[in-house]
Amino acid sequence: MRLSRYFLPVSKEAPADAAIVSHQLMLRTGMVRQNGAGIYTWLPLGFRVLKKIEQIVREEMNRAGAIELLMPTLQQADLWRESGRYDDYGKEMLRIKDRHDRDMLYGPTNEELITDVFRAYVKSYKQLPLNLYHQQWKFRDEVRPRFGVMRGREFLMKDAYSFDLTEDGARAAYRKMFCAYLNAFDRMGLTAVPMRADTGPIGGDLSHEFIIMADTGESAVFCDKALLDMPAPGLDLDFDADLTAEVEKRTQYYAATEEMHDEAAFNALPEERRVSARGIEVGHIFYFGTKYSAPMKAEVQDQDGKMVPVQMGSYGIGVSRLVGGIIEACHDESGIVWPEAVAPFHVGLINMRAGDAACDKACLETYEALEAAGIEALYDDTDDRAGAKFARMDVIGLPWQLVIGPKGLEKGVVEVKHRKTGEKVELPLAEAIAKVTPA
Amino acid sequence: MRLSRYFLPVSKEAPADAAIVSHQLMLRTGMVRQNGAGIYTWLPLGFRVLKKIEQIVREEMNRAGAIELLMPTLQQADLWRESGRYDDYGKEMLRIKDRHDRDMLYGPTNEELITDVFRAYVKSYKQLPLNLYHQQWKFRDEVRPRFGVMRGREFLMKDAYSFDLTEDGARAAYRKMFCAYLNAFDRMGLTAVPMRADTGPIGGDLSHEFIIMADTGESAVFCDKALLDMPAPGLDLDFDADLTAEVEKRTQYYAATEEMHDEAAFNALPEERRVSARGIEVGHIFYFGTKYSAPMKAEVQDQDGKMVPVQMGSYGIGVSRLVGGIIEACHDESGIVWPEAVAPFHVGLINMRAGDAACDKACLETYEALEAAGIEALYDDTDDRAGAKFARMDVIGLPWQLVIGPKGLEKGVVEVKHRKTGEKVELPLAEAIAKVTPA
Repeated sequence: MRLSRYFLPVSKEAPADAAIVSHQLMLRTGMVRQNGAGIYTWLPLGFRVLKKIEQIVREEMNRAGAIELLMPTLQQADLWRESGRYDDYGKEMLRIKDRHDRDMLYGPTNEELITDVFRAYVKSYKQLPLNLYHQQWKFRDEVRPRFGVMRGREFLMKDAYSFDLTEDGARAAYRKMFCAYLNAFDRMGLTAVPMRADTGPIGGDLSHEFIIMADTGESAVFCDKALLDMPAPGLDLDFDADLTAEVEKRTQYYAATEEMHDEAAFNALPEERRVSARGIEVGHIFYFGTKYSAPMKAEVQDQDGKMVPVQMGSYGIGVSRLVGGIIEACHDESGIVWPEAVAPFHVGLINMRAGDAACDKACLETYEALEAAGIEALYDDTDDRAGAKFARMDVIGLPWQLVIGPKGLEKGVVEVKHRKTGEKVELPLAEAIAKVTPA
Repeated sequence: MRLSRYFLPVSKEAPADAAIVSHQLMLRTGMVRQNGAGIYTWLPLGFRVLKKIEQIVREEMNRAGAIELLMPTLQQADLWRESGRYDDYGKEMLRIKDRHDRDMLYGPTNEELITDVFRAYVKSYKQLPLNLYHQQWKFRDEVRPRFGVMRGREFLMKDAYSFDLTEDGARAAYRKMFCAYLNAFDRMGLTAVPMRADTGPIGGDLSHEFIIMADTGESAVFCDKALLDMPAPGLDLDFDADLTAEVEKRTQYYAATEEMHDEAAFNALPEERRVSARGIEVGHIFYFGTKYSAPMKAEVQDQDGKMVPVQMGSYGIGVSRLVGGIIEACHDESGIVWPEAVAPFHVGLINMRAGDAACDKACLETYEALEAAGIEALYDDTDDRAGAKFARMDVIGLPWQLVIGPKGLEKGVVEVKHRKTGEKVELPLAEAIAKVTPA
């Protein structure tokens, strides 16, 4: 993308009304614009990151055998009356009346709706197991939305729902999601720690939050350091195999959010392994059995011909929240430092003297070589001064920068800068392109 | 995808409550499920088609220089009070009050919101031209939603908005979209005819609807046959060039929707060129100048330092509606006949004797060979009887079928069926795969 044809409203000043660093940086880099309390437009740069995260989540859900569909944003109130949650949910649920005065709502989550889809089509244990997911906008009418996209009102969530005949089956489905989540967050450059958590309004008796560490985290978390050092299960994991060992390898260690914290158990750990930190919740998984299927009569025939309510779990990832979460975990004093897999572009190409024939030619050739190699590049072809170009590239935080100027061209080299380490090296063009090409 | 692990609730019976063939077929093939009047869940098969269409639209918008972002579904009423449309819009606008009793609405279109984004960042003609688009769910509270996704209430629309300093610039932006639309519809296997149209509630003095022909079309349309025979501009079109000739090549011919129809002009055509048919609107483009920018004070500094309201146009494509529209245009008595570019899978692989070791082995090898070649395949590995498998593959309408059974394997061949022509041929496996591989 040529910057002169792009829409990237980067501003020099830190915005006054943003309390945390991710919100400040998202406003400064023109990733989002607020359109109302907790409601945002995703400007082009932010949109690209959102889509990258969505795609990683999609690939890891598919790998684990979940099937994507898409439920609508608006739902009928009657479904929520069936489950009993319509009155329970309180003011966070945005209630709407249509022109015929029918009670509707903007879905804050989708247990009821997916259960309704399920019961319409699935009648036999032979059609199980099943895991259906979507990535759709939700609305929760927070009384005090804050922290930018970290606690917005309209937000993008991936929610998956598993259906099994037995509790054992449902627990196996839960383990698949447990492992898939670790892989997904790992691909985004994050270390996420699963922690036993309260089940809240979703319900059920088994639940883990996936927490990433950041000084600005919303809640205090406590865990064994071993969990931070453990690699993710890996993309070659066989999701058809028994994943009990893979899960227990982690759940054997202490990890809990504030609400579930057991001071005595934590203090029993050797002191050097006690991690007490702030954390950000980026995922939450639940096993809740028949909480929705029983009242909503989502029943299947078992091997003996008996109708039994299906065993369910649900599995959420905060896709839009992750954009802020990743920035909280990945930034320095100059701006964002994107992990490669979620960076809006892979390379920033800086023309040090736009208008100079030799520089323009070298830059254009480089830009076209990058595009031809499938490497997403943002080409700063503007006539802004060098200092402004460097600062802008640093704050938007692309993994690599290629700087092309008249002095280097005389020597036959371009400068390659690695944003994260700050390392700079001068290389002939072909070698520079090879250096920034992902393995 | 293995059918035994997929969620594809195909039903044998035609649904009683669907009035048009696309709605019937989408229900029968388990593409959508209605969740309320005009509100649908996109089940896995339908979701895949929706995503294919969305991606084609994205690629053709990007090719024309438009930049993708994403605006929220909910908007503040105050913005619509600025433009004067809040009171005008009537009951089709879904009005909402949040917990603090603020007036909000579910966006039926986004002229106001994008104008607000624009005026926050763009202050100079040097930042123009600009074309920003998104693909987001909209809501129009139709008094009588019908025809499935063709006239739903919650629907997915691509809407683009162009910003230019001058009227000439805005008309050039309009021509880019005009050509990009023809290319996008062409890639979907559709012949879309641009027709002069009424501007309706969007406003402005220049507008074209893009219409595809189908017997079940919602409105009468009239055009010169030359337009149906004319190829799309093509993907190698230079969008930086003057596209006047490309547009006038088409607008020189008579084409009008019912509201704009001029009987005398139409009858002046040679009889063999008069096409009077039913049509489905799949896109609509508008030039409306300063209708929104003037009241909302979206002004930029021109070359003389004077502040002038920006010249705007808007450009819609009915993404979810197109799924129905394509089926209306592409089906036969056995079911849907997907154009290759939007088919949910490219090949259906039928195992004629699941459980037979030789058949299972040959099918699995074929399935893996297809996947390795990047060809999306739906592998029917169920133990349903052959007739049911054939009927299901026909009704879901994948472009190609590969049928593998014991008799063919003895002869060393598999059957390749082309869904559209019905042509069947027996070929050795490698040749069969080559035959279904897209050029």
